[in-house]
Amino acid sequence: MNEPATAIEAAVAASPLHQLKDELDIVIPTIRNLDFLEMWRPFLQPYHLIIVQDGDPSKTIKVPNGFDYELYNRNDINRILGPKASCISFKDSACRCFGYMVSKKKYIFTIDDDCFVAKDPSGKAINALEQHIKNLLSPSTPFFFNTLYDPFADGADFVRGYPFSLREGVPTAVSHGLWLNIPDYDAPTQLVKPLERNTRFVDAVLTIPKGTLFPMCGMNLAFDRQLIGPAMYFGLMGEGQPIGRYDDMWAGWCIKVICDHLGLGVKTGLPYIYHSKASNPFVNLRKEYKGIYWQEDIIPFFQQVVLPKDSTSVQKCYIELAKQVKEKLGKIDPYFDKLADAMVTWIQAWDGLNPTSASFSNGKTG
Amino acid sequence: MNEPATAIEAAVAASPLHQLKDELDIVIPTIRNLDFLEMWRPFLQPYHLIIVQDGDPSKTIKVPNGFDYELYNRNDINRILGPKASCISFKDSACRCFGYMVSKKKYIFTIDDDCFVAKDPSGKAINALEQHIKNLLSPSTPFFFNTLYDPFADGADFVRGYPFSLREGVPTAVSHGLWLNIPDYDAPTQLVKPLERNTRFVDAVLTIPKGTLFPMCGMNLAFDRQLIGPAMYFGLMGEGQPIGRYDDMWAGWCIKVICDHLGLGVKTGLPYIYHSKASNPFVNLRKEYKGIYWQEDIIPFFQQVVLPKDSTSVQKCYIELAKQVKEKLGKIDPYFDKLADAMVTWIQAWDGLNPTSASFSNGKTG
Repeated sequence: MNEPATAIEAAVAASPLHQLKDELDIVIPTIRNLDFLEMWRPFLQPYHLIIVQDGDPSKTIKVPNGFDYELYNRNDINRILGPKASCISFKDSACRCFGYMVSKKKYIFTIDDDCFVAKDPSGKAINALEQHIKNLLSPSTPFFFNTLYDPFADGADFVRGYPFSLREGVPTAVSHGLWLNIPDYDAPTQLVKPLERNTRFVDAVLTIPKGTLFPMCGMNLAFDRQLIGPAMYFGLMGEGQPIGRYDDMWAGWCIKVICDHLGLGVKTGLPYIYHSKASNPFVNLRKEYKGIYWQEDIIPFFQQVVLPKDSTSVQKCYIELAKQVKEKLGKIDPYFDKLADAMVTWIQAWDGLNPTSASFSNGKTG
Repeated sequence: MNEPATAIEAAVAASPLHQLKDELDIVIPTIRNLDFLEMWRPFLQPYHLIIVQDGDPSKTIKVPNGFDYELYNRNDINRILGPKASCISFKDSACRCFGYMVSKKKYIFTIDDDCFVAKDPSGKAINALEQHIKNLLSPSTPFFFNTLYDPFADGADFVRGYPFSLREGVPTAVSHGLWLNIPDYDAPTQLVKPLERNTRFVDAVLTIPKGTLFPMCGMNLAFDRQLIGPAMYFGLMGEGQPIGRYDDMWAGWCIKVICDHLGLGVKTGLPYIYHSKASNPFVNLRKEYKGIYWQEDIIPFFQQVVLPKDSTSVQKCYIELAKQVKEKLGKIDPYFDKLADAMVTWIQAWDGLNPTSASFSNGKTG
């Protein structure tokens, strides 16, 4: 690598977190040239990129000079997975999860190509990846709420009344970051509030409590592949499927119940990225409307899922979840039968590409 | 009332929230002159104060001119409650809950006399009471986490993937505010981090999810008396009791399980007050050490409490809780037998002073 050319690059290179560059891959799903990376260069250039090209595989995606990357298009996915490629969505950013599968690193950061570097209230550029790494490397506290938010943040701690036996926390599996400017709204809310922008900088990270589900957005997300990777499946969306824009939601519901079961933590809050462009609400409405309807049954399902004690690995949990999806959600629509089958295929494909992780057992069950 | 003399007073008087002045009492427990009210004058002077004088009843507490107040000392409490006065703590700020009981208003704001007006990052004085009222008058969302925090805040909403059936929310029963400067730490943390100050202004309010307990601090707290008042008992602390500094914690555990059962919401976050002075950590350690030990059993107890379907009022829930406390926590120490009895006495005293609320049924059970 060249000498750092700017103050930001020098600061990034000097950070101890910079050392994770050999343990973290950045996964970007895209259909266009990755000019957005120019703005991220000081923060992301040290890291390896896995680019998952969606749509027409004959198109050439340009990546700015100086970035180290591998790129997979649909032909590559089909070649690598064979018939199991059916579990990877096409013409939908859900295809990004292929990148999680082919990575060999411990951590993943995934970001959309319409997300730019945000500024904190002092005007300083936010190093989103650095904050994600902080979130992932410090424990989570899912069993009791800390009113001063992340007790492991600088200048914070557990407050009076927080049980001492719970202060060790649990390993953090997922770090969910937020978005300034264009908020992540559904189509109906986009239509009703076309001009709403998120300008509120909330200086907090918090653990989502055990037993509580949340809407996980895939735009600005990091996770520990070793701890939760096999559950980070973004489902069947896009071409040939009845819904879209529920890929990250599906993954969020699945990872949360599995993290709760295995005693792993999920954090949300900082870091912010700057989300530049609202997607078309009319197109979104077409993609979402079945999901908006179905989620009224899906969420109660996930709220009452119980995983058996002997589901001690992410893979075992996920296969069990697929079974329950087929049993309980198959009634809603044949789509869920297909999705449950794809969940099993996904695990087979994951284990095929990651043979040593297949029997890896995470954390404790609970 | 005189004409508003300052810009702040004019703004407060013009606020629609000012109209709550006939529906809200401010409860302050104290052992000293209430000079701290001078700083709060622009915000709190329109409201009625209930001052609960702790300690020596022969001492005179001075209240700054212009405040409308009633004051109760120990003699008053004994006279009003007779033998039931045994449920009100002495020589401990837990005595404040007597003020909740004698109020006839719908809302309570309680604040400690070492809490001052905080400033937001722009340097503007924070009207804590106005924010509490906003929190109480807008719904809570305990069944699913919203990643942009309070969806009812200005410029915010429910994010993509939030079930539409849950967007109406539930009535908010409690608003828990935070503290800048001296954080609310337990004695061991105070001892280890004597210089730590809370300088992080987190611009958020959030609902504590259903099924999650939190450490409720009584320093800066507001609630809806009609919805949850009878559960806001601060227990037996201070003189003659084996513990202190767990009064608000006890109330917090009780109100949370009852709110969860009745389908009511608890919010935490904004507003901040400025907490001026750390209490003596050595004295605190003496008061707390049994609580620190006992809470390791108390919290699992509250985490698994189930209230029966026919507990449809706060009073019924609270009596049931007292029964379970006696059964399950009585084993830890005879103190819990005494506390369980005091919980029943508290409800009898509450119903005696609030006869029409005795059979009032709140919300829906769940």
